[in-house]
Amino acid sequence: MDKKFWSERIRGLVPYTPGEQPKDRVFIKLNTNENPWPPSPNVLKAIREEADERLRLYPDPEATALKAAIAKYCGVAPNQVFCGNGSDEVLGLCFYAFFTPGHKVVFPDITYSFYPVYTELFHLDYEEIPLNDDFTLPVEKFLGGNGGVVICNPNAPTGRTLPLSDIRRILEANPDVVVLVDEAYADFGAESAIPLLSEYPNLIVVCTLSKSRSLAGMRIGFAVGSPDLVAAVNCVKNSFNSYPLDRLALAAGVAAMEDVPYFEKTRARIMATREATAKTLRSLGFTVHDSSSNFLFITHPAMEGHALQLALRERGILVRWFDRPRIRDWLRVTIGTDDEMEAFCAACKEILGG
Amino acid sequence: MDKKFWSERIRGLVPYTPGEQPKDRVFIKLNTNENPWPPSPNVLKAIREEADERLRLYPDPEATALKAAIAKYCGVAPNQVFCGNGSDEVLGLCFYAFFTPGHKVVFPDITYSFYPVYTELFHLDYEEIPLNDDFTLPVEKFLGGNGGVVICNPNAPTGRTLPLSDIRRILEANPDVVVLVDEAYADFGAESAIPLLSEYPNLIVVCTLSKSRSLAGMRIGFAVGSPDLVAAVNCVKNSFNSYPLDRLALAAGVAAMEDVPYFEKTRARIMATREATAKTLRSLGFTVHDSSSNFLFITHPAMEGHALQLALRERGILVRWFDRPRIRDWLRVTIGTDDEMEAFCAACKEILGG
Repeated sequence: MDKKFWSERIRGLVPYTPGEQPKDRVFIKLNTNENPWPPSPNVLKAIREEADERLRLYPDPEATALKAAIAKYCGVAPNQVFCGNGSDEVLGLCFYAFFTPGHKVVFPDITYSFYPVYTELFHLDYEEIPLNDDFTLPVEKFLGGNGGVVICNPNAPTGRTLPLSDIRRILEANPDVVVLVDEAYADFGAESAIPLLSEYPNLIVVCTLSKSRSLAGMRIGFAVGSPDLVAAVNCVKNSFNSYPLDRLALAAGVAAMEDVPYFEKTRARIMATREATAKTLRSLGFTVHDSSSNFLFITHPAMEGHALQLALRERGILVRWFDRPRIRDWLRVTIGTDDEMEAFCAACKEILGG
Repeated sequence: MDKKFWSERIRGLVPYTPGEQPKDRVFIKLNTNENPWPPSPNVLKAIREEADERLRLYPDPEATALKAAIAKYCGVAPNQVFCGNGSDEVLGLCFYAFFTPGHKVVFPDITYSFYPVYTELFHLDYEEIPLNDDFTLPVEKFLGGNGGVVICNPNAPTGRTLPLSDIRRILEANPDVVVLVDEAYADFGAESAIPLLSEYPNLIVVCTLSKSRSLAGMRIGFAVGSPDLVAAVNCVKNSFNSYPLDRLALAAGVAAMEDVPYFEKTRARIMATREATAKTLRSLGFTVHDSSSNFLFITHPAMEGHALQLALRERGILVRWFDRPRIRDWLRVTIGTDDEMEAFCAACKEILGG
């Protein structure tokens, strides 16, 4: 690679690595936290109705209808909602909008691995604060003296949840900087911080339709915060890309947010499957943390994480292993259908010589 | 607006303003350079075939099929192609990937008004070089001594084209910095610089499917350059948003690139309508520059630009007026269907008291 023409700012970057998206073979895919259930039938209908000659026209740059649908669901005003091309883009825009070089942003050492990538991309200063040994968050280490706080709740890849009382403590101890709570997985059993918005002008909550709304393929994410915070993200977005959501994504997003019964039904199924899977895995000798997300974080005393991942792959099952300190013996396993999870548990049993 | 929580980096930003997308009334919409013809029927078919339960899965982060289709059309290798969420996003990523603060980027004073916005967003140094009075580019002022060059060809909003011989001179005089040629409108009659890629490792060409492929609603843009330049844009993209193109946009893009006969037919119609419209407007006393794009840049000695824009709006016709020095008496008029352009010309005649 010749980097002669690369900006000096990007020569040292190590990009984020998404989970594998295999093209060659049919796997049981438990590696990227996708929802095993299809999107609401209303979503597919909305897309079909929108896919006509109007695609020659630009989409609404303000995503007005989608903001209204999200605002209604979340119980906030439309000017408290920002919509973007997946929550990854929303997070990236938030990092740029709220954090300033020279003012250290803090997040846990074990969390969504895109956070340090954004900070490197934008040349922000940051500190990764070590989680406790049981992967709980040492709240007292997030109480002030920094330039911003980022908390994934429930945390990825651990699945552990921080109670709202602790989020509150962090918000109150950081009144002059933004506290970003990434709730990509909160719909699977965690308490959302959105109700705290009326009390804390420094709070922004980031959500996605990829997981609990089964729309990873459509790239729809959003942020909810005070109008002043949302205006900041809008300012960056409108200085970078006026139309991040295409016409079909906008239509799909509205239909997904409005079909609350389908959302409730599918997330309840995933939570039930998760609890059943956790029980089986514990009976096989795995350590399984309580999870409020659509994945389990597991380890087994008899086998290294990477070896187990590879053995599962040979059996046609993909799970996520992270080559990172402290979690090398752990695997993150997305909750699939009951059948998929039974196949997964059976494969684990076979591999472990049960 | 309270900017207390805004990053210091963004407090002075003035975002890009896209053309009006009216919701309340049916206009003849000649203000945002959309294509009056629908996308290829194959595009709509491809979208319908892709819109099923697979939307629960992430799209291909590498856009492999779309890159292959673009590479085939452009006569380059797939690793010379970068795909993004509309050419605005592609341009933004390129500005970050190739230009370094302290090294002045140059572009004309009258050009796509997003360029200075990107430079402000990323705190790049830049200089706007005045076009000649007839809106031609003073090539000699772009020959070296800067940190990067951005040329929109054909230029927006003027429609004027730079011949490849001049692009060549600029490339040769700037061997150590990237020359970005934005060809958003090149399919309507300009010579593409893509054939120069084999000679100039400092060239990157940015294109869009919004205009000549009638897909503004789907947000698909791409860049073509050497593998080393494409790798730089990829590095920034993968540090910001792994999946900028959703599954339906990827499918739509492939179908659009592959339906060459439809593309040839519709762009030929637009060019024919453009020439007929230019002739009529000249007969009404307008100054109309030759255009190689899907718009005309026009002025009339008897009426100020803004007054004419407002008078057209009252008659249900939207055109673009820019409140900027040197072009306040000019209007940018997108080429619509023959019927739309006849209505536009008739309205002009009426307004001007013909």
